[in-house]
Amino acid sequence: LPSNTAVAVDVGLLSPVSAGHDHIVSDSTFVHAMVTAEVALLRAIDAVRGEEPDEIDRHSAAWGWRGIGELVTEHGVDAGALAAAAVGSGNPVIPLVAELRHRGDIHNGATSQDILDTAVMLVAWRVRSELVAGLDVLERNLAVFAQTHRDRAAAARTLTQHAVPTTVGLRASTWLRGIRRSTERLRMLTLPAQLGGAAGTLAAFVEMVGDSAAAQLPGVFAAQLCLDAAEAPWHTTRWPVTELGDALTQVIDALGVLAADVTTLSRTEIAELSEGEGGGSSAMPQKRNPAASILIRSAAMRAPQLNATLHLSAALAVDERPDGAWHAEWPTLRELERLALGAVAHARNVVAGLVVHTDAIERNLAMTNGRIVSERITAADLGLSREAVENIIRRSDDGDLHAVLDRALADAGSHVRAVDLLDPVQYTGLAAKLVDQATDDGESKSV
Amino acid sequence: LPSNTAVAVDVGLLSPVSAGHDHIVSDSTFVHAMVTAEVALLRAIDAVRGEEPDEIDRHSAAWGWRGIGELVTEHGVDAGALAAAAVGSGNPVIPLVAELRHRGDIHNGATSQDILDTAVMLVAWRVRSELVAGLDVLERNLAVFAQTHRDRAAAARTLTQHAVPTTVGLRASTWLRGIRRSTERLRMLTLPAQLGGAAGTLAAFVEMVGDSAAAQLPGVFAAQLCLDAAEAPWHTTRWPVTELGDALTQVIDALGVLAADVTTLSRTEIAELSEGEGGGSSAMPQKRNPAASILIRSAAMRAPQLNATLHLSAALAVDERPDGAWHAEWPTLRELERLALGAVAHARNVVAGLVVHTDAIERNLAMTNGRIVSERITAADLGLSREAVENIIRRSDDGDLHAVLDRALADAGSHVRAVDLLDPVQYTGLAAKLVDQATDDGESKSV
Amino acid sequence: LPSNTAVAVDVGLLSPVSAGHDHIVSDSTFVHAMVTAEVALLRAIDAVRGEEPDEIDRHSAAWGWRGIGELVTEHGVDAGALAAAAVGSGNPVIPLVAELRHRGDIHNGATSQDILDTAVMLVAWRVRSELVAGLDVLERNLAVFAQTHRDRAAAARTLTQHAVPTTVGLRASTWLRGIRRSTERLRMLTLPAQLGGAAGTLAAFVEMVGDSAAAQLPGVFAAQLCLDAAEAPWHTTRWPVTELGDALTQVIDALGVLAADVTTLSRTEIAELSEGEGGGSSAMPQKRNPAASILIRSAAMRAPQLNATLHLSAALAVDERPDGAWHAEWPTLRELERLALGAVAHARNVVAGLVVHTDAIERNLAMTNGRIVSERITAADLGLSREAVENIIRRSDDGDLHAVLDRALADAGSHVRAVDLLDPVQYTGLAAKLVDQATDDGESKSV
Amino acid sequence: LPSNTAVAVDVGLLSPVSAGHDHIVSDSTFVHAMVTAEVALLRAIDAVRGEEPDEIDRHSAAWGWRGIGELVTEHGVDAGALAAAAVGSGNPVIPLVAELRHRGDIHNGATSQDILDTAVMLVAWRVRSELVAGLDVLERNLAVFAQTHRDRAAAARTLTQHAVPTTVGLRASTWLRGIRRSTERLRMLTLPAQLGGAAGTLAAFVEMVGDSAAAQLPGVFAAQLCLDAAEAPWHTTRWPVTELGDALTQVIDALGVLAADVTTLSRTEIAELSEGEGGGSSAMPQKRNPAASILIRSAAMRAPQLNATLHLSAALAVDERPDGAWHAEWPTLRELERLALGAVAHARNVVAGLVVHTDAIERNLAMTNGRIVSERITAADLGLSREAVENIIRRSDDGDLHAVLDRALADAGSHVRAVDLLDPVQYTGLAAKLVDQATDDGESKSV
Repeated sequence: LPSNTAVAVDVGLLSPVSAGHDHIVSDSTFVHAMVTAEVALLRAIDAVRGEEPDEIDRHSAAWGWRGIGELVTEHGVDAGALAAAAVGSGNPVIPLVAELRHRGDIHNGATSQDILDTAVMLVAWRVRSELVAGLDVLERNLAVFAQTHRDRAAAARTLTQHAVPTTVGLRASTWLRGIRRSTERLRMLTLPAQLGGAAGTLAAFVEMVGDSAAAQLPGVFAAQLCLDAAEAPWHTTRWPVTELGDALTQVIDALGVLAADVTTLSRTEIAELSEGEGGGSSAMPQKRNPAASILIRSAAMRAPQLNATLHLSAALAVDERPDGAWHAEWPTLRELERLALGAVAHARNVVAGLVVHTDAIERNLAMTNGRIVSERITAADLGLSREAVENIIRRSDDGDLHAVLDRALADAGSHVRAVDLLDPVQYTGLAAKLVDQATDDGESKSV
Repeated sequence: LPSNTAVAVDVGLLSPVSAGHDHIVSDSTFVHAMVTAEVALLRAIDAVRGEEPDEIDRHSAAWGWRGIGELVTEHGVDAGALAAAAVGSGNPVIPLVAELRHRGDIHNGATSQDILDTAVMLVAWRVRSELVAGLDVLERNLAVFAQTHRDRAAAARTLTQHAVPTTVGLRASTWLRGIRRSTERLRMLTLPAQLGGAAGTLAAFVEMVGDSAAAQLPGVFAAQLCLDAAEAPWHTTRWPVTELGDALTQVIDALGVLAADVTTLSRTEIAELSEGEGGGSSAMPQKRNPAASILIRSAAMRAPQLNATLHLSAALAVDERPDGAWHAEWPTLRELERLALGAVAHARNVVAGLVVHTDAIERNLAMTNGRIVSERITAADLGLSREAVENIIRRSDDGDLHAVLDRALADAGSHVRAVDLLDPVQYTGLAAKLVDQATDDGESKSV
Repeated sequence: LPSNTAVAVDVGLLSPVSAGHDHIVSDSTFVHAMVTAEVALLRAIDAVRGEEPDEIDRHSAAWGWRGIGELVTEHGVDAGALAAAAVGSGNPVIPLVAELRHRGDIHNGATSQDILDTAVMLVAWRVRSELVAGLDVLERNLAVFAQTHRDRAAAARTLTQHAVPTTVGLRASTWLRGIRRSTERLRMLTLPAQLGGAAGTLAAFVEMVGDSAAAQLPGVFAAQLCLDAAEAPWHTTRWPVTELGDALTQVIDALGVLAADVTTLSRTEIAELSEGEGGGSSAMPQKRNPAASILIRSAAMRAPQLNATLHLSAALAVDERPDGAWHAEWPTLRELERLALGAVAHARNVVAGLVVHTDAIERNLAMTNGRIVSERITAADLGLSREAVENIIRRSDDGDLHAVLDRALADAGSHVRAVDLLDPVQYTGLAAKLVDQATDDGESKSV
Repeated sequence: LPSNTAVAVDVGLLSPVSAGHDHIVSDSTFVHAMVTAEVALLRAIDAVRGEEPDEIDRHSAAWGWRGIGELVTEHGVDAGALAAAAVGSGNPVIPLVAELRHRGDIHNGATSQDILDTAVMLVAWRVRSELVAGLDVLERNLAVFAQTHRDRAAAARTLTQHAVPTTVGLRASTWLRGIRRSTERLRMLTLPAQLGGAAGTLAAFVEMVGDSAAAQLPGVFAAQLCLDAAEAPWHTTRWPVTELGDALTQVIDALGVLAADVTTLSRTEIAELSEGEGGGSSAMPQKRNPAASILIRSAAMRAPQLNATLHLSAALAVDERPDGAWHAEWPTLRELERLALGAVAHARNVVAGLVVHTDAIERNLAMTNGRIVSERITAADLGLSREAVENIIRRSDDGDLHAVLDRALADAGSHVRAVDLLDPVQYTGLAAKLVDQATDDGESKSV
């Protein structure tokens, strides 16, 4: 390998959403993962050949093997040089194998895609672990937040307009439910190793170790890496990648909803929420921007299209390895992983520091002078006809809904008074119960 | 409602992939589904109020109710007029409710989104059933096809070039596995009814029937419709839509792989496969195009971006109902459903009629004069050094690999002969076993 | 053609954004356009063969020709039947040609793609005209609006927070500039006819009329249709489609900004703008939603991904006509056209009825008690050090910026008073000039 | 700034398509560009204040200014540290300004977006120059290639099937036309500097230098940077970004067509073309993959969705600076630029080394035994009825078209002979003329 690191371009500066979490998906990590896959294959072949465990360990230790579930890191292969060499061959495995062969006996029988797909899944496994751990903390914090503000009535808004009351706790529970669902989907993912040989028949392995041993090989290989065993080679059946992409996108979707609500409710005129540490401004000293939520939103606007590319790559797979669709996957999946890692980290910060401004909440709730509870007049059994109700609402356009309503109620002989009927706090329906259900689930889960 | 059907535009002409399956997702079906949701809500409210079953049936029969799992179709609401009226209000539920109220007592308490989301899920349920039924047939036919051609060796191609041999059966098994996975994902979908009221608190229902009855209402409502019960209102947690979109896209991805292989293998120069009934040409009388596969491919190129829009809509949801994200979902999901329905139907035709041209398969397999089995020389234990093997390959560039190899084997004192070593049929690895596993699964499933 | 209209599915109901404008891109229009292309080809062949104009007119009149720039509509071909027949052949031209041949002598030499691409461009031409006309009116109305509110100071918001003052007029001018740019791009589009024959060589035409006449044919054909003459067949160089898609998307982008500002500024707490006729709610009688802006936003969230499909179709074109990429274009482009038509129509309504609430504007502008003008203190030459300024801002967190600033100014011996310095109306920079420039351009353009 | 470069993640390894061209868009380049924008602003303010040129140069030289059109590179700001610091503030300008202020007097009045947008355009200018230079070379080489193979008849394929003959030269001319159009669009781009201040009113600049000087400032600023002068601030009218994205995507689309044809025509069975230096395989020693074309195709599958994100960012812009849409742009545009740079570089290699295999071309052209010229029988005036022609084609299914046709011609009393009529070389229509036109344009342009 030439010592040319010129191609290892930095891209952190323009991606503040994912900054700080990139090492999990960095070039170095991918080189570690590819070498690990190669060494795991050595071990697996040794194993199906019936080598003694000691001998297998000795053999793989020479290549830096550190144990099942660990990445090989002391291999001395330079990521930058590998990246440079990958240009000509079209993928980094070809120069990696050449480099490793230079040093000793390394695989026959695996194809580039076996090694690279397996490396992608090794990295994905770590990304998933990191995400699930972060999301678990986030969910616990959100559950506490939701319980804390369980009964705080606030204006609900639909299509930008005040609708009826809701509660701060219910809103947080809704975020929590979406996030929890996405975490479950992450947990349920199948992340399989890949081992099929040049065209998915494992023919070279059959040649080397015979039919029966070759048939065991993919499972043994996966076990060395703590990855799922594939039911068959998946060179062109890319659901392991698209289901991963779907799940990552679902995480970002769920965080996007939280972020959209935080930025909206942080608006100067609304001011019901603020990030604990907002970002500053280079020109306007008074500003405190909901910077973390904004970065999450930027991820939410990008992720779906990245995921579309993963699906396209899957849908356009052809032959026994496609002419471009496979190559479009790697950088796209990595970027999606970076966005998910960054979005979770930022969301944890947002929730940990989220400030609730009860004065603003009360002011906003009161600002339509009871009209936010209009629906109740139509729903409650007040002895008023629909026409009467519509009249009341219409006549109250100038704001005196209480007076108009009291008059109508009196005319209808009702003892109900507007001040009770129009109290937003008394019209939050099942909000508290929904909060309890959402947070109970959380508690039972976290036990 | 005005009798104005001008907005009911036809779009079948430019979408031959989905033509013929559109009634499942037509405007009329959506009107049926919305009315059905309204009537189911009446029934559910009756039920939680403790009405007698007979009374509930009598009440709902007046609105055309036909039984659980059936759509109300005899409602007389004109889809075109409703579409025209939806423009001003932004969604079709508002004019529908106005129209229904005109006729009698209809819901209070539900919001437009409750009715429309539920209608979307009612339609999705039917789309899913249709898809699963079609995919089951497709899978069975593919399993038969794979078994029929289980041992037919053929050239595998990677990055467009002959790689090593595979079998026709293994290729079909690979299609089958991808398709089967997507079917499983369809089966596992949660398709919940939606019932939350204006802002997801069910406050109006509490007003009408009290806390405890209101809490039962969403479940009872869902049961009337044969839909899943939601754990909570999902007005802004849109995973029911995105998981549906992901699954539909995964179906199309899987069919896209089949279609890409069929179009490629139908190329005049390759000619290993042909569609039973290819499409003709307006200008070239000799042509038989793989028309169905081409239409499937057109769906495969479109679906991922439609799905991206669903994720965006989910990720940009804000407030208790968003200002545009929700509206972007409906037509997008419907188009994705149309593509899936059409792709499955076309794929069934393709597989049912697929012709295997064994003469072309044999010709192609032989065309590199044994070089397609080069990998075997490196994998087999022939007593040749790596350098020797590379030399053999290099020297055989003019095609006489058999002679060069025989010479090298003789020099190395091997008794192996090139004619055996380079026989493609003898280098298909575990292909037959992989076919059996894929098709056994299929059989056990279909029992 | 069978009389089977089952495939002509209605899709208006779930697309309120485009409802009412669909006839321009309906199936019937596309059939008109395809027939028109066929007849124009007859005329063009007649012309390059040197037929007399009278004879050409007589010949084409028999097919319903109505003159250059007009669509042939009296052809009796049923769109639904054609759509049904298109399924088997993969495109609607093949059954159309069969049907027309049934009736008389129709083209030889053109390929399906010639006719369909030309029809697509004929429809695009009409869509473009409709859009440009609508956008011109919209721009004029926006210019009037911007001038009317030219000097109305209002809070500018960045990253959701009050930043510094701007004006209502400047905001409208910004919308105007974006929209005007997109209109210019529409105007500059090249919309070429397509005529290349089976593989873009025009070989059949050479056979029929000779080299020299065949070379003139594409230009004469385009002239019959009022379309641009292509420099060469563009069967696989799809920039006419992608540039059209880019321009349509740019229109929708520009309208999306207007709509996002309107929905945001219509929020109950902000309330600076409202749509003249907002949409109602099925449950909450008091609501007035910015329904038209919301529909525009739904288009803005969908258009970019549709456009991505057009680019993919262009980028994946292969051979002399691709196996799926071409077919993915038609329905995608049509949907994008529908969105643009609908978005423009809704935007015209929004701007025509847009209500400015000056009381809310003033209230919002005043709500930070002068802090919205903080930047000015750092920019103005007040004899205060940067540290002093930062101190002032920091100490004024409780709202008494005026007092703190006056004290600091007095300490620094300045005669400037906070009440002047912090008057938002006096800190709108070049806003008025920018409005004048934007609206002058408009006037000069419209003359 | 902390000396923390941990966030500067490497991403070259998984992006072989763009490797080697990344320095143009690297983090370091963006830091250079941001500092350059800051210094240009100093110069512009000096200039509109009427400072002497010498004084302006002296002032800016202290900040490392190297002249108009040059980037400031000797500033000592560490990209990694800046990236780390950008996480909290949400963009890299805020910590950059803090760092620069630490060192001396730097701007007041500009907002983060002014500096970052301008930096983005400075980088885009360089990317554009690099692309145009590369595309010019590519076009010249393609023109030579097209002329060289101008009269080489080859099978045209539509929908994967042999259609009629074309020529190698015409196919290359078609690539050339698409590429040339995209180059023109690059050349026509407007790449404006951004200068609007906190909310696009330039209010702080008015405060500093007065109305009239402030009005000149944006133009003077742009001139310092060799960028286009914006007609107004474009903080939320993002057509400069989307038109750039559209043009970059169009370049990649055009190269995608070339790459798709190269990979298809390189297929083992077709073998009409091969890349001069194909990529190897880690497992199959005989393989020569069209590696560069495959990488171009991977870019072609990714670019449209990246461009969609740019449009979404434009369409979702809100307020005077949006809450996420702006942030989604930077990394997306950069990735699109990387893809375009890489695709052009690879395409240059492909075209420079492209090998035409005339033996395979002739073999393929002959393989349908004349049926590839079937269209001619329908187009030519042979005195045969349509039914007769269709009969001939049908009866020739077993391959003896020549004999069947000769018999029919003899029966019809024609003197034409099948061997002439069915000679593919004699049925290439205007192919040669179209090549000449395409390559003439090229020559005149390059003069």
